[in-house]
Amino acid sequence: MSRARGFASDNSSGAHPDILAAIAAANAGHATSYGGDPETARLEEASRREFGESSSIFPMMNGTGANIAALRAMARPHQAVICAETAHLSIDETGAPEAIAGLKLLNLPTPDGKLTPELAATKLADPDDLPHVAWPAVISIAQVTEMGTVYTPQEVGALADFAHENELLLHMDGSRLANAAASLGIGLAEASTDNGVDVLSLGANKNGALFGEAVVFREPPLTAGFEVLRKGTLQLASKMRFISAQLNALLEGELWRDLAGNANEMATAISEAIAWIDGAELAQVTQANLVFFALDPEKAEVFAKRLMPHHPLLFRMGDVGMIRLVASWDTQIEDVDHLLTELRAVLS
Amino acid sequence: MSRARGFASDNSSGAHPDILAAIAAANAGHATSYGGDPETARLEEASRREFGESSSIFPMMNGTGANIAALRAMARPHQAVICAETAHLSIDETGAPEAIAGLKLLNLPTPDGKLTPELAATKLADPDDLPHVAWPAVISIAQVTEMGTVYTPQEVGALADFAHENELLLHMDGSRLANAAASLGIGLAEASTDNGVDVLSLGANKNGALFGEAVVFREPPLTAGFEVLRKGTLQLASKMRFISAQLNALLEGELWRDLAGNANEMATAISEAIAWIDGAELAQVTQANLVFFALDPEKAEVFAKRLMPHHPLLFRMGDVGMIRLVASWDTQIEDVDHLLTELRAVLS
Amino acid sequence: MSRARGFASDNSSGAHPDILAAIAAANAGHATSYGGDPETARLEEASRREFGESSSIFPMMNGTGANIAALRAMARPHQAVICAETAHLSIDETGAPEAIAGLKLLNLPTPDGKLTPELAATKLADPDDLPHVAWPAVISIAQVTEMGTVYTPQEVGALADFAHENELLLHMDGSRLANAAASLGIGLAEASTDNGVDVLSLGANKNGALFGEAVVFREPPLTAGFEVLRKGTLQLASKMRFISAQLNALLEGELWRDLAGNANEMATAISEAIAWIDGAELAQVTQANLVFFALDPEKAEVFAKRLMPHHPLLFRMGDVGMIRLVASWDTQIEDVDHLLTELRAVLS
Amino acid sequence: MSRARGFASDNSSGAHPDILAAIAAANAGHATSYGGDPETARLEEASRREFGESSSIFPMMNGTGANIAALRAMARPHQAVICAETAHLSIDETGAPEAIAGLKLLNLPTPDGKLTPELAATKLADPDDLPHVAWPAVISIAQVTEMGTVYTPQEVGALADFAHENELLLHMDGSRLANAAASLGIGLAEASTDNGVDVLSLGANKNGALFGEAVVFREPPLTAGFEVLRKGTLQLASKMRFISAQLNALLEGELWRDLAGNANEMATAISEAIAWIDGAELAQVTQANLVFFALDPEKAEVFAKRLMPHHPLLFRMGDVGMIRLVASWDTQIEDVDHLLTELRAVLS
Repeated sequence: MSRARGFASDNSSGAHPDILAAIAAANAGHATSYGGDPETARLEEASRREFGESSSIFPMMNGTGANIAALRAMARPHQAVICAETAHLSIDETGAPEAIAGLKLLNLPTPDGKLTPELAATKLADPDDLPHVAWPAVISIAQVTEMGTVYTPQEVGALADFAHENELLLHMDGSRLANAAASLGIGLAEASTDNGVDVLSLGANKNGALFGEAVVFREPPLTAGFEVLRKGTLQLASKMRFISAQLNALLEGELWRDLAGNANEMATAISEAIAWIDGAELAQVTQANLVFFALDPEKAEVFAKRLMPHHPLLFRMGDVGMIRLVASWDTQIEDVDHLLTELRAVLS
Repeated sequence: MSRARGFASDNSSGAHPDILAAIAAANAGHATSYGGDPETARLEEASRREFGESSSIFPMMNGTGANIAALRAMARPHQAVICAETAHLSIDETGAPEAIAGLKLLNLPTPDGKLTPELAATKLADPDDLPHVAWPAVISIAQVTEMGTVYTPQEVGALADFAHENELLLHMDGSRLANAAASLGIGLAEASTDNGVDVLSLGANKNGALFGEAVVFREPPLTAGFEVLRKGTLQLASKMRFISAQLNALLEGELWRDLAGNANEMATAISEAIAWIDGAELAQVTQANLVFFALDPEKAEVFAKRLMPHHPLLFRMGDVGMIRLVASWDTQIEDVDHLLTELRAVLS
Repeated sequence: MSRARGFASDNSSGAHPDILAAIAAANAGHATSYGGDPETARLEEASRREFGESSSIFPMMNGTGANIAALRAMARPHQAVICAETAHLSIDETGAPEAIAGLKLLNLPTPDGKLTPELAATKLADPDDLPHVAWPAVISIAQVTEMGTVYTPQEVGALADFAHENELLLHMDGSRLANAAASLGIGLAEASTDNGVDVLSLGANKNGALFGEAVVFREPPLTAGFEVLRKGTLQLASKMRFISAQLNALLEGELWRDLAGNANEMATAISEAIAWIDGAELAQVTQANLVFFALDPEKAEVFAKRLMPHHPLLFRMGDVGMIRLVASWDTQIEDVDHLLTELRAVLS
Repeated sequence: MSRARGFASDNSSGAHPDILAAIAAANAGHATSYGGDPETARLEEASRREFGESSSIFPMMNGTGANIAALRAMARPHQAVICAETAHLSIDETGAPEAIAGLKLLNLPTPDGKLTPELAATKLADPDDLPHVAWPAVISIAQVTEMGTVYTPQEVGALADFAHENELLLHMDGSRLANAAASLGIGLAEASTDNGVDVLSLGANKNGALFGEAVVFREPPLTAGFEVLRKGTLQLASKMRFISAQLNALLEGELWRDLAGNANEMATAISEAIAWIDGAELAQVTQANLVFFALDPEKAEVFAKRLMPHHPLLFRMGDVGMIRLVASWDTQIEDVDHLLTELRAVLS
């Protein structure tokens, strides 16, 4: 349980000092609970500036909660959601989409974690199969994807158009939206809602926050009743000012971009070095703060154990030991150097 | 949206400085996410010291989440929970017990918010009514109750015995357990699990924390799979160290008792003064940090508007304007004096 | 397990010969499953004649299923339904409204089982309580009520107006709608949808059918997707022609009225006799096929045991033994005479 | 909407005359509702003779209901079920496993519709992935599979052993169990519970019944509370005697075997003829009453339209038009001849 900085997850890092400072500043006296506080009012303004005048933002407790509450607003129990088979929704949320939202996930295999209209089209229901199949109501994509890739604005737009033409809504799991926007050199909205995303789970934890995330709606219709649905989905913070203050700190002055930018840069540094290391092979293009590479399975085992004994850096995939590394807002170049030294030692 | 300290809710106050200090201290370097961190390990030890060697503790995101996850561990969908009709579960959780846990609430009218074995017995199912009725699996009580009253250890024990004799489990919503224990001059376990409570929702927010609560199991059987159920109930904090650090700060050195004790003392001061004020009548005995008193409805309206325009201090009950005041860990005697001055002004 | 006709329930009687004949007639050759058969097409026409050109009908498997599927179409999980505390939904459906539809029931005490706008108004939510309370989306009434009483068309209309003014929908559990309409001397629609009922659970089992019920929607909007929801609520019959054939037999030639009329008549005969029997006191006015009367508790026990040892005819209510008798489509006047003889014997 | 016998589904056929006779015989006088009737008592005895003294049987309303109630007894919401990707559960139950039982389905591609221990092993969860993944609690197989294949007793036993070694339960969707047992020339139990199936959905509809199915538990533990769960899963028949009477008619004298045997024989006749027809290629071995064969897609379209315009006989699979034919208990050899004549006409 060392405190050393590693590459297990961008959840392993703590909070940025500005986040703690914003919380401390919000901690003066009393404020109306459940969102009737000045920090939340300020966040609502900041969010409208970023995501448009018709948009609205709702602070949430955590990422799974943000995703599930968003999907409950977009689809009814017994409907279905089209997503990648590697989606966090599919493999990392303990059945909450099914048990809490009552939704069936229609999983699509996709090597780079990205959906396309062509892929999504294979999961559209045939009207002849009614009423027997679960009807898809939503396409859900992740920006950054779980495979570390980033959708271009055009790719998001094409999926949004496809969704809307087929009477589906487009959800984005943006737990790493900041990394995607920083990678693309554009704004948060440009990487999401500006291109037709209807509902966005906006990450903060992996971007240097202490706790809390948000849900952003691009246009009013779906927000009706969402305040109630958030509470009913166990996601209402009583002292909401402390989540809002963190989001304000990230949005104002684009702190989000600095933090995500550093994480991306460190991942790129790793990636570029690995390209030159014999015995290690990049398995995905590195577009944000995740690096995937393959090793001989035995060496992967040794490497993973040495780097982070308690965390599943390693995914066994047939004959290959697939390693996932995640850089954080606080990753330093000496952390990268240390990692590469270890890797070279294992491979030599 | 003033920052002035008021009596709207113990959620309106911020966090105690020691809580912020504990978070800052936990913010060094990296730590395994989802609970594999040193602060959580320390919490687990502290909790076993308090609640017994067989007990286990699970940090949670918020109070509704703690209650719902606890109940999901204790009962299966289509079963029922016996509780007071004024319970937070019944009137303040937006249908989450029904929609998320699939449970029917069997509400009992009780003027002081407390259940007794006699009351609970009226909701036991008649085997002749099987399979048509929802079978109660749990009795849920709140310590402090929603009416501001406190169960004695004997009263808790009697309910636990009754529950266990009837093959029910006893749940305690302890969002204000610290206030109850401080009021009784006993420990947290003595006011809960030591007397047979099977699963406890342990509050922190209303006791000076920034965010986060916990669920405590007295004995192992029900904990099987709870780690998974917590995640599936949207209550798993990725950077769990920051909840655990707060709970450690509250438990170590009994900071919880100081903070709850102050809130109780301030409520008592209000209560004692009101006993001497013409036109105001105490509606519940003040045993913790909540004060209930009745005014002429028109005067109640004026008073409520003056004190806290955005918060429902006021409950209309027939011909009476019922006022609920809540003292916080940071309430000062001058806040009480100001309140009483306002009240006398309205009534004169 | 005798075959003798009794008064335990209108589910204890079998099917009317015309029902069996209709099933046999529908049993020729093959027919498209899941509703694409000629009997279902004929039913859809018959139903539009009865309930209006904009209405639609969906055969269902059973009464609880009809109610739950109807409510799922009318409300979303975490919303609430206003109903009588004696409603079948509340006490006789094993928590299915909660566990399957995710709805909270807001129970109203009402001695005669009927709701009024005044009563329902007490359960409307206060906007100030948002987002903490479960918001009512539906008022659900039973026609005949569980206490044997019948709503007049005016009473139904007043509730519908109240519901619609408050943006609620009106659901009717019509498991005994035939008895209500026969009692009022009007049509099925006149006792339900003509007066503003939005969605109707239309009973058949208690009206002489073998199995199966239906859901009727007054107007299109809510029917969107109901075909899918029916299947997803486990209520889609594969050989649907056999439910439709029964409903056709009941609707065509108003067989429903003859069968319900006989049951009502027999209940009235019992009721009129009891008015003259010392020691028995009618507890509800007899308006349909249910009779409620009170006895000395010990004598009630003897009577209940003698009449139907396996069925809870008897409800203990404080100092009174409350007896519920239900007449069926096949009850004969000699069954009534036998019953009264037994009652007099117990009381003498 | 002709009455002609076709090959669209074994749900398109009606009920066998003995079934109608059994219903008529059960229709004498009154009987206690909800299962307290003589027919249900007789069924319970017959079922214990077939499935063993420790077994128990519960009549249900329909097949989806039987599956969902069985799974609710075997797993808790947020757990997972391992099944074939072609399973009825996965593609033909409108999201009910997810929305009603709260379960995630872990789908396995399998060309012949059968699972093996090796396949199932790929879906076992890695303890390192806790608490993030949905943990499988059940393996669900279909006997006959959706691809028309039949598990041998040894294959069922191997899956049961694998399941139990891994602390999973084995569920069998036996909507066509009669066809499997007839094909294997063994008893219903020998094709299911005798080889370790824990809970069985026992079909009747596709075996010549009018309506109704059953759930059979091999051993007591899981049955605790199932009577309540059945009602809460909307599957309790009020006039249960009429389902029980049908099941009795099928079980006594092994009527089930005659009816399933005829369907199997007719499917075999089709299959044997197709082996000799140019342009048609059998796509699955025919082991029960389903025949799968491939045609040129355009010809498949013509054939499907001619044979059954309203039913999806035809599945487009890449470059192939896959035709599914289902023989029924009432299929005659002249129906087979007619079909083959049509097929030859389309192909010539």
